[in-house]
Amino acid sequence: MSPSTPLLREANLTEIESLALSSELNMADGHARQELTEAQRSIVDEFPDLFHKAAAQPVDDLEREAHRAFLHMMGQHTFPTRAGGVLTCYSSSVAMEILARSLATAGGGSVALVHPTFDNIPDLLRGNGLRLLPVEEDVLHHGPVAAAVPDGVRCLFVTTPNNPTGRVLTEDRLAGLAAECAAKDVVLALDTSFRGFDTRSHYDHYAVLRDSGCRWVVIEDTGKLWATQDLKVGLLASSEDVGLPLAKIHSDILLGVSPFILVMVTRFAEDARAGGLADLHRFIAANRSLVRATLHDVPGLTFPDDGARVSVERVDLGDRPCLDVWTRLRQGGVYMLPCSQFHWAEPARGDRSLRIALARTPGALDAAVRSLRAVLLDE
Amino acid sequence: MSPSTPLLREANLTEIESLALSSELNMADGHARQELTEAQRSIVDEFPDLFHKAAAQPVDDLEREAHRAFLHMMGQHTFPTRAGGVLTCYSSSVAMEILARSLATAGGGSVALVHPTFDNIPDLLRGNGLRLLPVEEDVLHHGPVAAAVPDGVRCLFVTTPNNPTGRVLTEDRLAGLAAECAAKDVVLALDTSFRGFDTRSHYDHYAVLRDSGCRWVVIEDTGKLWATQDLKVGLLASSEDVGLPLAKIHSDILLGVSPFILVMVTRFAEDARAGGLADLHRFIAANRSLVRATLHDVPGLTFPDDGARVSVERVDLGDRPCLDVWTRLRQGGVYMLPCSQFHWAEPARGDRSLRIALARTPGALDAAVRSLRAVLLDE
Repeated sequence: MSPSTPLLREANLTEIESLALSSELNMADGHARQELTEAQRSIVDEFPDLFHKAAAQPVDDLEREAHRAFLHMMGQHTFPTRAGGVLTCYSSSVAMEILARSLATAGGGSVALVHPTFDNIPDLLRGNGLRLLPVEEDVLHHGPVAAAVPDGVRCLFVTTPNNPTGRVLTEDRLAGLAAECAAKDVVLALDTSFRGFDTRSHYDHYAVLRDSGCRWVVIEDTGKLWATQDLKVGLLASSEDVGLPLAKIHSDILLGVSPFILVMVTRFAEDARAGGLADLHRFIAANRSLVRATLHDVPGLTFPDDGARVSVERVDLGDRPCLDVWTRLRQGGVYMLPCSQFHWAEPARGDRSLRIALARTPGALDAAVRSLRAVLLDE
Repeated sequence: MSPSTPLLREANLTEIESLALSSELNMADGHARQELTEAQRSIVDEFPDLFHKAAAQPVDDLEREAHRAFLHMMGQHTFPTRAGGVLTCYSSSVAMEILARSLATAGGGSVALVHPTFDNIPDLLRGNGLRLLPVEEDVLHHGPVAAAVPDGVRCLFVTTPNNPTGRVLTEDRLAGLAAECAAKDVVLALDTSFRGFDTRSHYDHYAVLRDSGCRWVVIEDTGKLWATQDLKVGLLASSEDVGLPLAKIHSDILLGVSPFILVMVTRFAEDARAGGLADLHRFIAANRSLVRATLHDVPGLTFPDDGARVSVERVDLGDRPCLDVWTRLRQGGVYMLPCSQFHWAEPARGDRSLRIALARTPGALDAAVRSLRAVLLDE
């Protein structure tokens, strides 16, 4: 497939990512594709044992252990323990589909959604018949909270840390938004899929939400951190009074995830807590430095997300259209992500930036970023 | 949780199945929970190698290999090779959700659906806003095909082999239904999740559908056959002219399944083709005989699905309400499935039968069926 620029404009980000799947210089998707650490490799060596362990233990226990290990690793020390309080899904996007359809089933309405963010979130919400109102990041993070919760919306949906910008809701700001949502009876929904990368989001979100008295939903994702060949789960946590048929729609789609994957998640989370997560943070920071060092003297190029710690990095291309750069990179077998589609309400605002995935081997990342440098310098 | 009979009536089958998940005598869900064969155990021993193999090969190749190995194993020798012709999903139910939402997105309307069948199919269709018309199995399998494709429907949906009855669409009948769907411009959708168990469905469905000229969709499932701890994929195959946004909605929900699972499916399918599938058929047949032998002299009890080969068996309880029997079984820690909910358009027709899962170790199945016998004889 060789899409023209107009076709590419109509593609969603996942479709663009899929073009890169078999490329050696795939810096497109946000999946974890770095090498395993030695400790992680030894967990993979134990896969046959983990498989038999999973077969021998009650799945309820395995599920609880996986939730606890994964959430504790990120400072999320409280979580709902009632039946259905944390629903385990095949992935965070399946959790998102369940949330979107639950909102639609329970009466539909409007959702205020952070802008920009990864486009499958607006697509899944709109695909289920919901209307969207963009909430700019600056409005979300600063100024009166009332502006971030427009009158009449059913739900405020926030990705934190955000993808692609890496912006993190502080504990105080989350408390403010939650109080506003409680006052307006708006469901506050968070997608925290990237929080594993950023210790500034390792506070107890659920405690803040609970204390606010708002109705809330949080989507978690084990799939961004570790290069487990996409063996992963998504979690869909909610307040008891959420008033959405989450558990019912979950039961329409699955009886449960693989017990083997639950055991694997527990083991990877334990390793992360024992030092693996700090190693991962250093690894991503080093890859970010590599990108910035390689591109720092390209005229007109800037890095808009100064404090970002997530496993993706945006580069602002100055006056160069990202689709032109994307097309030239692709001729050399290099894939990054044009940012237009992240700006789901106003794509033109992303037309001059690219997103580079950082959860990659440094060698491949280096080669890809050198290609980008050459394209930008027209070498 | 100890649901009362009225609550149980409102539960869906998956919710009832979930009550059994941590029980040793769980004969409720249709997942594969028998012991691994020696050959399968040796594949599990190779999991670390398969993981590294999956990491080293282009995922497009792994996906093609998995499709080919799995489909060929069941006599499905042709399949769409165009991009997006066979979409790989986390599970058959995720494939079903994608199909249901695609039908809704492309204009909604009515779906003619086999009756009875597993209730998550009607629930996913209705949950996406589609109207349902029941098509009785006898109408589907015999008499004029026009009666099976009511005027004005958008889609005819057939589970074959059916769950729980095990009834299989013959090649001739499929051709007749497909011709009728072609004439009426109705999408013919099949869920063939249980076909691995029944050689009578090991003919080339896609060739029949293609030759008819109808628009078609087929959902396949690797998850029913092998006790792989729910490591599985669902497939969503379709004709090129299907006219539904299947690939788009698929891309909203996933970039791809785990390459590791793709490799595992290929290996299990190769083993099945080399004799493992015939062994599995003998194993299920022996478990079915065990059920029938243990219960054959219980007064009023019958086995309505004489020729069934799928991994579930219905028992008709005569004049005993299945919820009473279910409740008494449960007191002894034994779980089967009441059949009311399979009869999604007329639950009362299932009120006097139970479904017993056969993909279990013979020891556990024997203990569970002896408990059922004792309950029925009021011992």
